[in-house]
Formats: sequence, structure tokens, C-alpha cells
Amino acid sequence: MLFEAFLSSAAMETVFSPAAVVQSMMDMEAALARAAAKVGLIPAPAAQAIASLCRAELYDVQALIAAAPRAGNLALPVVQRLRETVALFDPAAAVYVHRGASAQDLVDTAMVLRTREALRLIDDDLQRLCGQLLDLAERHVAVPMLGRTMMQPAQVISLRFKLMNWLMPLLRSAERLREQGRASLLLQLGGAVGTLDAIGGRADELLAAVAGELGLPLPDMCWHTQRDRWLRLGMEVGLLCGNLGKLAQDFALMAQAEIDELNEPPGEGFGSCTSMPHKKNPVAALQALSAVQRAPQRVAGLLACMAQEHERGLGQQQAELAEWSGLMGGAHSAVQALTRALAEPVIRVDRMRDHVLGRQGLVASEHLELLLLPRLGRQRTGAFVRDLIYRVRHGQGTLEQLLHAAIDVGDLPPTALSAEELAGLFDLEAIAAQADGRVATLIVQARARLDAMAAQPCA
Amino acid sequence: MLFEAFLSSAAMETVFSPAAVVQSMMDMEAALARAAAKVGLIPAPAAQAIASLCRAELYDVQALIAAAPRAGNLALPVVQRLRETVALFDPAAAVYVHRGASAQDLVDTAMVLRTREALRLIDDDLQRLCGQLLDLAERHVAVPMLGRTMMQPAQVISLRFKLMNWLMPLLRSAERLREQGRASLLLQLGGAVGTLDAIGGRADELLAAVAGELGLPLPDMCWHTQRDRWLRLGMEVGLLCGNLGKLAQDFALMAQAEIDELNEPPGEGFGSCTSMPHKKNPVAALQALSAVQRAPQRVAGLLACMAQEHERGLGQQQAELAEWSGLMGGAHSAVQALTRALAEPVIRVDRMRDHVLGRQGLVASEHLELLLLPRLGRQRTGAFVRDLIYRVRHGQGTLEQLLHAAIDVGDLPPTALSAEELAGLFDLEAIAAQADGRVATLIVQARARLDAMAAQPCA
Amino acid sequence: MLFEAFLSSAAMETVFSPAAVVQSMMDMEAALARAAAKVGLIPAPAAQAIASLCRAELYDVQALIAAAPRAGNLALPVVQRLRETVALFDPAAAVYVHRGASAQDLVDTAMVLRTREALRLIDDDLQRLCGQLLDLAERHVAVPMLGRTMMQPAQVISLRFKLMNWLMPLLRSAERLREQGRASLLLQLGGAVGTLDAIGGRADELLAAVAGELGLPLPDMCWHTQRDRWLRLGMEVGLLCGNLGKLAQDFALMAQAEIDELNEPPGEGFGSCTSMPHKKNPVAALQALSAVQRAPQRVAGLLACMAQEHERGLGQQQAELAEWSGLMGGAHSAVQALTRALAEPVIRVDRMRDHVLGRQGLVASEHLELLLLPRLGRQRTGAFVRDLIYRVRHGQGTLEQLLHAAIDVGDLPPTALSAEELAGLFDLEAIAAQADGRVATLIVQARARLDAMAAQPCA
Amino acid sequence: MLFEAFLSSAAMETVFSPAAVVQSMMDMEAALARAAAKVGLIPAPAAQAIASLCRAELYDVQALIAAAPRAGNLALPVVQRLRETVALFDPAAAVYVHRGASAQDLVDTAMVLRTREALRLIDDDLQRLCGQLLDLAERHVAVPMLGRTMMQPAQVISLRFKLMNWLMPLLRSAERLREQGRASLLLQLGGAVGTLDAIGGRADELLAAVAGELGLPLPDMCWHTQRDRWLRLGMEVGLLCGNLGKLAQDFALMAQAEIDELNEPPGEGFGSCTSMPHKKNPVAALQALSAVQRAPQRVAGLLACMAQEHERGLGQQQAELAEWSGLMGGAHSAVQALTRALAEPVIRVDRMRDHVLGRQGLVASEHLELLLLPRLGRQRTGAFVRDLIYRVRHGQGTLEQLLHAAIDVGDLPPTALSAEELAGLFDLEAIAAQADGRVATLIVQARARLDAMAAQPCA
Repeated sequence: MLFEAFLSSAAMETVFSPAAVVQSMMDMEAALARAAAKVGLIPAPAAQAIASLCRAELYDVQALIAAAPRAGNLALPVVQRLRETVALFDPAAAVYVHRGASAQDLVDTAMVLRTREALRLIDDDLQRLCGQLLDLAERHVAVPMLGRTMMQPAQVISLRFKLMNWLMPLLRSAERLREQGRASLLLQLGGAVGTLDAIGGRADELLAAVAGELGLPLPDMCWHTQRDRWLRLGMEVGLLCGNLGKLAQDFALMAQAEIDELNEPPGEGFGSCTSMPHKKNPVAALQALSAVQRAPQRVAGLLACMAQEHERGLGQQQAELAEWSGLMGGAHSAVQALTRALAEPVIRVDRMRDHVLGRQGLVASEHLELLLLPRLGRQRTGAFVRDLIYRVRHGQGTLEQLLHAAIDVGDLPPTALSAEELAGLFDLEAIAAQADGRVATLIVQARARLDAMAAQPCA
Repeated sequence: MLFEAFLSSAAMETVFSPAAVVQSMMDMEAALARAAAKVGLIPAPAAQAIASLCRAELYDVQALIAAAPRAGNLALPVVQRLRETVALFDPAAAVYVHRGASAQDLVDTAMVLRTREALRLIDDDLQRLCGQLLDLAERHVAVPMLGRTMMQPAQVISLRFKLMNWLMPLLRSAERLREQGRASLLLQLGGAVGTLDAIGGRADELLAAVAGELGLPLPDMCWHTQRDRWLRLGMEVGLLCGNLGKLAQDFALMAQAEIDELNEPPGEGFGSCTSMPHKKNPVAALQALSAVQRAPQRVAGLLACMAQEHERGLGQQQAELAEWSGLMGGAHSAVQALTRALAEPVIRVDRMRDHVLGRQGLVASEHLELLLLPRLGRQRTGAFVRDLIYRVRHGQGTLEQLLHAAIDVGDLPPTALSAEELAGLFDLEAIAAQADGRVATLIVQARARLDAMAAQPCA
Repeated sequence: MLFEAFLSSAAMETVFSPAAVVQSMMDMEAALARAAAKVGLIPAPAAQAIASLCRAELYDVQALIAAAPRAGNLALPVVQRLRETVALFDPAAAVYVHRGASAQDLVDTAMVLRTREALRLIDDDLQRLCGQLLDLAERHVAVPMLGRTMMQPAQVISLRFKLMNWLMPLLRSAERLREQGRASLLLQLGGAVGTLDAIGGRADELLAAVAGELGLPLPDMCWHTQRDRWLRLGMEVGLLCGNLGKLAQDFALMAQAEIDELNEPPGEGFGSCTSMPHKKNPVAALQALSAVQRAPQRVAGLLACMAQEHERGLGQQQAELAEWSGLMGGAHSAVQALTRALAEPVIRVDRMRDHVLGRQGLVASEHLELLLLPRLGRQRTGAFVRDLIYRVRHGQGTLEQLLHAAIDVGDLPPTALSAEELAGLFDLEAIAAQADGRVATLIVQARARLDAMAAQPCA
Repeated sequence: MLFEAFLSSAAMETVFSPAAVVQSMMDMEAALARAAAKVGLIPAPAAQAIASLCRAELYDVQALIAAAPRAGNLALPVVQRLRETVALFDPAAAVYVHRGASAQDLVDTAMVLRTREALRLIDDDLQRLCGQLLDLAERHVAVPMLGRTMMQPAQVISLRFKLMNWLMPLLRSAERLREQGRASLLLQLGGAVGTLDAIGGRADELLAAVAGELGLPLPDMCWHTQRDRWLRLGMEVGLLCGNLGKLAQDFALMAQAEIDELNEPPGEGFGSCTSMPHKKNPVAALQALSAVQRAPQRVAGLLACMAQEHERGLGQQQAELAEWSGLMGGAHSAVQALTRALAEPVIRVDRMRDHVLGRQGLVASEHLELLLLPRLGRQRTGAFVRDLIYRVRHGQGTLEQLLHAAIDVGDLPPTALSAEELAGLFDLEAIAAQADGRVATLIVQARARLDAMAAQPCA
């Protein structure tokens, strides 16, 4: 799984490391024992004995993992070893280990606990990334650049507009991830078939007590095969990956040497190439792109696991688990990479302006046309503008020059265009300022939303 | 696309039919013209002339579609034909057609309008399906049946519990689809590069007016390449498909002739097989399963389209559109099929009971073990229960019979099991009632939530 | 399915049109009847009566399609209507309609027949596309251009090398599709459960006769649920899509206005933009990219349908069918679009050279380093080259100029670099010729392979 | 990546372990050095020095992996550490390390070498699995069982027929994997941009020499971004997963307690459930199903990585690598699990027969109808058979009993059915023998093909 790790982050690898997952399983067992004692289902000393041994470092985690495939899941060997160990210290207590719970209760709840950590990691770095984008947006006022559609220059926009176009989906992702985390991170405890049948009349009390121990909300019904809430969270992470991929791709396109409008901060070793030292490889974009590359398939993988048969299914959950941590890791790795790329990026506002100018005014042709249309009619406007464009393309001058010339020689009636309109067509700062204006309110709101997030820790 | 249509519903095929999509594009053009007049951007008579010709039946829809691939999208031929037609009636008005809008504005908004209808269809039938499941759950009290895990009999549950297990994800889907619909169905209007640059200072007024005309909320920023909100809706539909697939699969498993606990209502032609009249094919389940089969890939397809370059991308949106209507159609077709299957399903509570009894009491072995453990200890309990299971499996009697015999001959100390406990182990109705109890509150809440949905129309 | 059609080709839409599919089903029924008569299973006049009515134009195809969902597949209504029609003309013959065959036999074989046509379409245009690429490769000798890695300029290659890099995967696809077509396009005829049990002892004779009628090879065993051979063909088409997508993406990258090395032939309406006439949108690339965008998910969709239960499954095949025709249509549409783009593309060898020169010789730095290393050692070489690069980047000259200067002032020992080596570093034509040399043999072989394909029609 | 490992096999984890991958990279470096010396590009002592240090155990593999993300790939840190180490022993040799090769050359070739081992593992166990299925098929003669379609009983087949239906796709997979392995496992060596530009005129000699060193065939052109051949191999593994999933699913369906026709060998701990000892969980099927569950998405993931930009792409290859080893691991794990399940499976021919008899003869109704049709005509036959079926369903007897009674009372003309035909309808052994007959030749061929594979080692 060498190459999977490459696509994850070190921190996320730790969150879903074998030791961490086993510890979360142990936390669930301890909580279950304590809660059972609290509601009178098992003796308090037994609970104490069990809880005291629920520490992953006491066990050979690799051996537990090795035993998992034959058992069909990781929970069976964990429970068995815990029970054996408890029996060594307090034989009477051993029978109360894992009482009333199913293997899936253990694994699902452990994954909920791990995912709570995972979301905190993502939340933290995603806030940072949003902050960086917003800082850049605030800092750059009325910087004209090409808006590009179908990978071709289209019209003039502003750098701030572009930055906000990247930011808003990420900000929504950050907010929604918190919200969906609260809705999805629920205790799983249903027993063999979801009814907690082995617990009898105190099931509700027990559920409340376990939930309290772990700080997890209770679902309205056990979700062994009701995977929808859980998957909404996974899908939201998949969507974050899509948002990140869009940003990383734009970044890579703008970093192309022939365009060179934006690049990663130069630095020790980043993107340097041993054999081609002249290259400025966008390595952070590479890392982000490769980390999110498979997110669509991962989400499909999760959705394809939903048809878990009857009360608990045959094999889908194991596949779901594997997809889950990979999805989280990819998302975090991409957030981190982009945070690195956007910490102090090289922004070339000169090149942005040059690229606009390089279009020799042609990007203003639509505006020109719109101004002329009501005054000259479609036919005459069309002929006039097409002719101008033809001449620009054949090197006879910029659109501005040719337009002035046309006015001078009377090809355009003096009433067709006011001096102000004429100037406005080519006033890049004014156009950029107008684009800035489209996000004027939003930029303030975005800051407030980011501040609100920072003020309240992720659940 | 013959076989795609097979997986959709007739109603959804109509919603996304060429004529309906073109009409929605026309609706957008009409709204744009009226709004532009309202805010003083174009003359009112021109707006009136344009709006009066925005009727799909005036155009050769097939010809428009045929022209789309070469143009790169459907909007260009639509706008061109509309403009030509307007020019026939009011030449001066023609220049105001589509003014300030981009091709993508037109297509996205049309799809938003179509999707509003699509969600209504799904909402309507999904409410019906939820109602059917809830009716069945209310009607069946304490009906014991096998809970099955890993495709094997596990413990006894109740039919009501199983029905609620199917219902709750669907009810959540219904509620979330309404909510996400409100969040996702937004006007798209950004002009060439998202800044409405061709509109000038009145862009906000225009936006408000167009939104008002179409009854659509405004986004905080144009979403040409911010596809996250839109995709959240698609993902939610994909999740609904997953929930439906789970139900359809359980249905098909229970309908197997050797199990035969549940089947579709017998009827005219459903599931009959010309060459094998003895078969009772679960045709509605088949239809549902095939309709949702590709939903995971469809969601992946949507997510894979997110990296739309710069201000508007090269080709992803066209692929997204195609996936979108297929996803909606599949979801609706599956909802409809299951609604048919669950209208008056054949429920065999006798077979459900028989299957429990066929396990010869073995499903009670876990409970027995849990009762004995604290009294006999793990070792003695284990040996005793294993021996019983062995003898049941070798045909020496049911677990109940052998347990009574063991008590009679003194193999089990009299204190190990009270008479009440002994009886409780095999009292299927009591066990089913306990399972019912797990959803007692929920069944009431679910009814209230369904009633609340019915009371308020889908937006 | 409006937008699905957008992503297909008109010709492929015809191949998988309802009428064409129903006709292929009829062809199978006719072949079955004739073959059954031939081997003595049914009376010859009955066969004649049946075969004479196996003409799709006699039936209301839309009504057949509308009846399909409730029947669970398209075959049942087709057989039923055919049987009713035969009964009108020859009541005794009606009982022999579809004798011994299953619904799936009919649908699978019809799809095999349709796919045979689909592959011919793809084969034809794919040969054309390969021919265009090869023509271009043959025509361009030693044209230097940038080789780019990680979306950054790396070293100099030649245009021919690049063209061959695009061609070879497509040529392999063309050859493999023929080969896999032969292996995958097999008769499907197994009866209800694959054993042709209703036929009795003459099953082998019947199979041979039906295969002969349809010109299809026989499989070694019926493939109702052995979908592997069939899917190998689908996967091969998916792979073709991947190859096409790579080419289309490179094309779009090279067509960016700031790079502008390659673009589509200018022409009537292609890529023109009503509102932005200055744009040269790569519309053929757009069409190709959107058409192949979902191919990975389509292949996944096919693979996810493989687990068809027992002798014939519940619903997977219906989903498989829908994916199948979409995959074929997307592939053909993309091939056609690229054929259009590469018919007379605008190739700017001047810009290719300019981009190399724009690197100011830095692309030669690796070669320079390799030459110096054995002579100066790693440390000294590294320092020397790094210094040169630094100075180039800071505008002090091109690498060539600075290198000459370094030699002149003695910064580089005279023995470190021969005059020939020095010249070779910057001789773009020589470098391009060397790159051409890497594909010298291959270009000849490719022509021979293409000629061989042209000489032998696609099966 | 805990849960990914769960879905792989221990042996495959070793094949793609960090140490093994790094060693293969080292093998490539050693081969490159030796070959370069052989063709006179570098001094022989340098090659010897380099090759002697190409041993993974000399390096801190975890540190290399940790350095990979920032470098953008694993090759850079490996080359750097190797170069540093060589410099310690033979400073002059260090400059020749990795000479002329690119990072991707190193990684791709290493993965080719690892995959060669991976295919051997799969080949070995897949042969075993095929052998087991063939042994079972040879051993079971004329065993009648239900053929099931749409998850319902359809007609009678034989166990041998079913086994051959599972075997043939697996046998084809085994053969095709060998074939595709030979076609796909090619040396990757192209240098920075695929032209081996740094090597000069001896590139062909060098390629031949490196290929000879590693025992790998040469491609006709470097395949940095020609991923089609490589992906054909991945797709073939994905297809194997589909074949395995079909088998595992049928297995799980047959193992359902209510059907219980086939189950895993009982054994130490397999499928036992701590809390429900009465369960016979099909744990091997679970393992196989979960291991192949994501194969469709994995193949999609590979295909989605194909559009690698220009001469070498930005990030796709890293994602491709991660998908690759997971796909191999899943396939091998599933093969192993099924090999365990089918070593000595519990086959209940009594239950198979009981299930046929449980249909009370109804499975013969189609045959009966086919026999009567030409003699009684459609209408009379239909009425007669429908009546019989109705009465069987309402418990009046088996089809055989009711048919005899009908003949006795003259409801059926004596000429309608010969005594032989009547007996044949219900002679399960004869029907099973006929089904066996459909695979009579094939079973012999399959043995010969398996023997041929065993006789020749996997390349």
C-alpha cells in the first residue's frame, strides 16, 4: 500500500493507523463496559477490570490484523484477545466483555471516532487554505486578467473574482463538513441484528450511557445497513476533493511556462528536477491532483457498498471501510498541498495584464458589438466588428487603434459610440474593478464566515 | 438510447425530453428579455416580441439538436433560431435576444427548471413508497421473523423492525431531497465569464428580476465552474438510489422460492414468464435494481466532471448534463417500481415463522449463553451450549426440547435458568414485540414527518 | 436522453436505434426458425411463415418498447407480437416461434449483431484518424518542439515523435478491436437455463445452423452469465476512449491561445462563438473530450454488472445493455470529432520553435550537465550549470551565449566541451532529427499495418 | 491503510511492499549501469560500483517513502540516496547513476518487475482454483439441481453444468492473464521526454542491453504516456475480479441456510461466530466478495488516469500506481479465499434434488408445453397446462401425479404424449445427464488446457 500512502497525508495515516483504530475499538469496549455497569447490567468491578485493559499498547496489533481476514473482520480477534486478557486478571469479568454488541458495532463506532479526528485535521487545514485565498483576494484590487472559457481567452475578469471563484466552493465545503459531521458521526450499537435483543429492557438506558461515555450522539435506529447518513459524509469529502481538483487544475494551467501567471513559492527542493534544473514543476498541484484523482471512483465505491443484505451484509462493509480512510487521506493531502502552494505563491500580475494585451483588444469585441447593436442594427454591426477582428488578426493593429482609425475616417458614425464608452472598452482597471464589484459583498461575508468557523471549534 | 429509456420512467423521459428542455431554455430567454426591459436595459416592445416567440412548439427541435454537436452545445442553435425568428417579426428586437447571457447560463438554468419538475416527480412517488412501508409497519404487530446477517439466519427480529429499517433511509432521502433542492436549484446567469460584464452597473437588478421571473433563488456568485451545490443534489439522488437498491435486493432475496417470505402482488402480466409459467419473477425488484445499478458510476461521472477549467470548461459540462438526466430517470423508475411492488405485497408471516422454527431454536443459543455465563462461567457455559448445538444439528431435537431434557436430568443446575427466562428464550411473539419496541417512538415520528411532507408541497 | 445523444454520433444512434435493435431481434428469430426447420425440429413451412414476418417495419416499435419495462425485458413483447402476427397468417406456425430460446438469447444475439455494425463504424473512422496522424508524421521531418513533462517545458522533441506518440495507441486499439470483435461477437443461444434443454438431442445441430444463418461463431458454452468475453470488447472500447482522450487533451493544451501550436481547421461555424467572435474554440476537442469523459465510469458500470446470479441474473443485464450502446456511441463520436480536427489542422511549426527558443537554451542544460559530469565531476559541474541557469533566468543572456562567454573567459576548461558538442547542444534540427530517429522504423511499420488493415475488411 | 491490507493477500502485500518496490527500482538502476558499461557509455568500474550498491537493505526505506510526496515521486529520493552512497565509495562513479533515465522510467520498470511477480502469484492460485472446479465437475455425474433465473427456480440443470459455467471464465482469465502479461510487461526507458535524447546514437544498443539484463521485452516506443498496453493488463485483472465475484455470489446464495446446497468446508474458526455459534457464515465468500467489490471502480480509476499530459503528465501516474497494487491484491485475495472455500466444499446433492422436487414438477411445465403445442395447438395446450399449474400450486398434487390423472380420465388424448416422453419429463437423472452432455467435450478440453498451463511456467 506504498503508493496509497503517497496519496495520503502523514497526519491522516496516523489517524487511521492500526494502533489508532484498535485503540478506538478498545475505547468502545471500555465505554460499553462502563455504561453496562452504570445501568446495572454487569457488575461494576467487572467493568473496571475490562476498561483498565482497553489499551491498544497492551496488544500485538499486527497479530490482530493478521487474524482479521480469516475471521471476516477485525472485531473478532480484538474481542477475543481482550476477553482472554481480562480473564487473566479477573476471570469473572471476562464474560462481560463486548456483551450485547456485534462486531460491526465495534468497527463502525471505532471508525466514527477516528473520522471525528480526521474531520478535525481537514477542517483545520481547510480553514487555513480558505484564509489564504481570502487574504489574496483582499489584497489584490482591480487586477485585470483573462477570463478563459473552453481553454481560450474570453473576456477580462479580475484576479479577485478568480480567487473568490475558487474560494466559495471550499468555504461551503468547510461549513458543510462540520454540519454533516454532526449529522453523521453517531454511535453504532445494535447487537447481533440491530435490536439489542441481548440487552433486554434496558437497551435505551445502555445506549444513552454508551453515547455519553464516547461523546457521540445517538441515532434514531441502529444503522448497520442504513448507510445513508454515513455516506453523506463520505460524499461531502468526495465533493471537497472535486473542489480542490478544480483549483489545482487551474493552478497547473496558469503555471505553464508559456502562461506563467501563478506558481508555487520557490523553495528548497519543491518541484526541482534533478535532471532538468530549469523546470519549475508545480509539485504541490501534482500532489493535490494525484491525491484527489480517484475521489469520484472512491465515492462510487462507497455507494456501491450500500446494498448490504438484510440486517448485516456479506462483505460490503469491509470494502467500504477501506475506501473510507483512503478518501479522507486523499482529501487531507490535497488540502495540505494546496495550502503549501498558496502560502506565498508567485503571482505575476504583469503577465496577467500582458495576456490581456496580447489579445490586442479582441476581448473587447463583444462589448463593442453590444454597444453598437442597438444603434447600427445587427447586420451593420456584424460586418463592422467582423472586419475589425479580421484586421486585428492580420496584424494591422490593436482593436483600439483600428477603432479609433475607423472613427477618424468616418467608418463609424460619431453617435455610435460615446467617448466614455470608447475609453471604457479598453480600460482594463475599470473592467477589473467591475469584476471585483461582483464579489464586493461576498468578500466581506466570506471573512465573517471564516471568522465564525475559527471562533467555534470543529465538533 | 433505447436501453437507457428502459431504465428511466416515462414521466421522467417527458421532463427531460428535447421539447421540454428547449422550452425551459426558451423560458429563460423570455425571462431574461422581460427582466432586461424591466430594469431598463432593453426596450419593452423588444422584450415583448422576444418573449412571445419563446415557445418551443414554434421550432424544429430535432434540427436544433442535430446542430448542437458542431456548435459545441445546444444553446447556440437555440439562440440563433430564436434570434432569426424574432428578426422576422421585429428586426430591431433581434439584437436584444440572449443579451448578456452565455450559452451555459441558458443550459444550466434550463436544467435547473427541468430538475425542479424532476424532483417533484420523485418526491411524489417517494412519499407514496414511504407511506406504503409505514402502513405495513403499522399494520404488522409483533410478527417474528429471522434477522439475517452475512446472508445467514442470526436472531429473531420483527417484520415491523425490518420495515422501519427500510423506511428510515428513504424518509431521510425524501426530506433531504427537498432541502437540497432548495439549496441547489439556483438561477445561473453570469454572462461570458461569470461577471455579467456586458450588463454593466445594473447587473444586480437584472439578476433579481430574472430570478423573480423564473421563481428561482439567486446564488451568491455565478456557478459556471462552482459545481458543488449542483452536485450535492445529484449525489443526494445517487444516495436515494443506494437506499432503493438495498430495499430491492432484500426484497429479491426474500422472494426466492425457497424462502418466499415476500413477493410482489400477483397481477396482470407482472413477472409472468411466457416459457416458464410456474415462475414468480420479482419484476418490480428487477426494474428497481437495474434502474439504480449504475447510480454509483453516475455519481462518479458527475464528480469527475468537476474540474471545469478556468471560467468555463472544455466539455465536462456536456458530459455532466447527460449523466444528470439519466440519474434522475433511474431514481424515479426505481421508486415507481418499488411502489408497485409494495402496493399490496404478498407477505407470508407463516413462512417467516417457519424459518425461525426451522432453525430449531438455535437462534436462541446466544441468549441462552448470555444468561448462563454469569452463573456458570465461560468454560462451563461454553461446553454446555456447544453440546446442545451439536445435538440439535445432529437431529436429536430442538434446542428447547434438549434444554428441558437437560434440566430434567440435572445437567443444568436448577438455579441457572428461571422458568420465566426459559420460556422467554423461545417466546417468538415476545421477542418480536421487543424488536417492535425498538421502533415504537420512531414509527410515530415517521408518521408525523410524512404528514408534514404531505402538508407542504415540494418547492 | 437528449444529452446522451449529444455525446454519440448520428451513425451510432442509427445502429442502436429501436428499429435497428428490433430488426436484429427479428433476424435472430428468423434464423432460429430456419435453422430449426433445417435440422428437422419444426416444419419447413412454419419456419418460412415465421421468417417472412420477421421484419421490424411490420411492428409498432414504440409500443414494443413501452411494454418492455413491465415485462422485465424487450424480448417478451417482441416475441409475443411476432407470435400473434404469425398466428394471423399461419396459426399452426405460431407455436414454433422462439422455440427453445430464452429472452436473453434474443437480446444478447441482437446486441452482438448490432455491435458488429458498431465496430465497423469505429473501425472505419479510426483507420482514417490513424491515417491522418501518420500522414502528418510522414510529412513533418525534423521539426523541433518542446517536449513537456508535468505541464512544463522539459526537453526538445520533434513533431513527428509527438504524432507517433499519439498514433501508436490508436493503431493498437484499431487492431485489437478487430481481434477482440472476432473473439467476442458470438451467438447466444442457451434456452431457459443455458442447456438448450427444450431442444433435446439436436442442440448441437441447431446451434451450428443458427450460427451459420447469422454468420456468427459459436461459443464453447452459452454465455448468459459468462460475461467476460463480451466485456473484454467493451473494455477495449473504453481503452480506445482513454487513448482518444489523451490526444484530445494534448490538442486542447496546444490550442491554448498563449501556446497556439496546433488548432482545428478554421471553418464554417466550427468553434465560432456568437458572442465572442475572436475566440478559436477547439470544438472538436471539446466534443471528443465530452464524448469520452464518462468512459471510465461506463467500463466500471459494465464490470459492476458481471455478478449475474445463477443461470440468468436479476437486472444486471438491462443495465449492461444501456451502458454498452452509450460506450460505443461515445467512442465513435470522439473518433469522428478528432478526425475532423486532424483533417487539415493548423500546425504552427514557427510557434513550436519559438517556444523552444523562449526557454533561452535552458532545455539544453541537462545535456550540458551530462557532458560535463565525467569531465568536471559532480560538484564542479553542478556549480557551473546552476550558475549558468541562474544567469539565464535573470536575463543575462541565453544559455548558448553565456556558455560561449564562459569558454571565452576560461571559466570552462577547453577540454570540457568539444566544438561539435557545443554546437550539438543548440542545434534544434539535429535534436529533432534524433527524436525522429527514435520512430524511424516504427513509422514504416505503422504504414504497413494500416495498409494491412485497409486491405482486409473488418469482420 | 489498515483496511486496504485486509482486502489484499499477505503474499501480494509482500510483492508490493516498500522494500520490494525499492529493490526493483534498484534492480533497474543496476541493470542500467551494467548495460551502459556494456555498450560503452560509462566506465565498467563505475557500473560495477553502482550495481554493487543497488541493494534495498542498505537504505532506510521509510525515509525514502517519507521524502517522496515533496519530491513528487519515489524515484527522486531513491536516485539521490543511491548517488550519495555511490559517491562515498567511488566518487567518480556517482555521476553515472541513473544516467539518461527519467524518474518515471525507474518507477514504471520497477512496477513491471513487481507485477511479473504478482501475476505469478495469481496464476498459481488461479490454476489451483480452476483445478478444484474441474475436479468437482469431473466427479459429479448427472447430479440434478435447479437452474435459477431472475433469482427464481427455472429448469433443471446439472451440478457439472453449473461448475463448468463457473470454471470457463476463470480458465479464460488464467490464459489471458499470461498472454496479456507477455504483451504488457515491457521495459520502460525513455529518458526525460521519451526520446532517450541524453544517450545519443547508442540508444537502441542501450535499450537492448537493459532489457536483456532484466529479462523484459522492449516496447516499440517508450510508453510514458501510452498507457494502453499497461492498462489492458489491469483491465484483465479487473475482469478476473468480476468472474470471481460472480462465483462468490452464487456460492453465498447457495449457502443461505434456507437453501444450503453448498457451503465452505467446516473448520477451525472459519466462519464461526463468537456470539452466534449456530451460524455457518460463508467467510471465504465474504472475503472474496469484499476483495473484488471495488474492482470496477479501480479499473475506472486506471482508465481515468490515461490522459497524461504531453510527454509525461501531472499526477495521474501516482494515482495509477496506487490503484494498481490494490487491484492486484484484491484479485489474489479473492482467488485465495475461493480456493479455500472450494478445497473440500460441503456439497449437498440431496438438497439440490429436494429443491427440484419441491417445485412439485412445475419445472417440467415448459417441456410439457413444448411437447403438447404441435399436437394440441396453442390454445388447448395453454389452457391444459395452466390448469395443471393452478392445481399444483393449490396443493392438489405434483405435476407428474396430476398429469397421470389427466391421462387416466382422458383429459389428455392418448396420442398427445408417449409413455417415453411422459417419463422423460420427470426423469431428473436423464435431464441432468443431458445438461452434462452440453459440456462433455468442454470438460475434456478444459483439462487439457489446464494441463498445458501447468506444463509451462508463467512468464
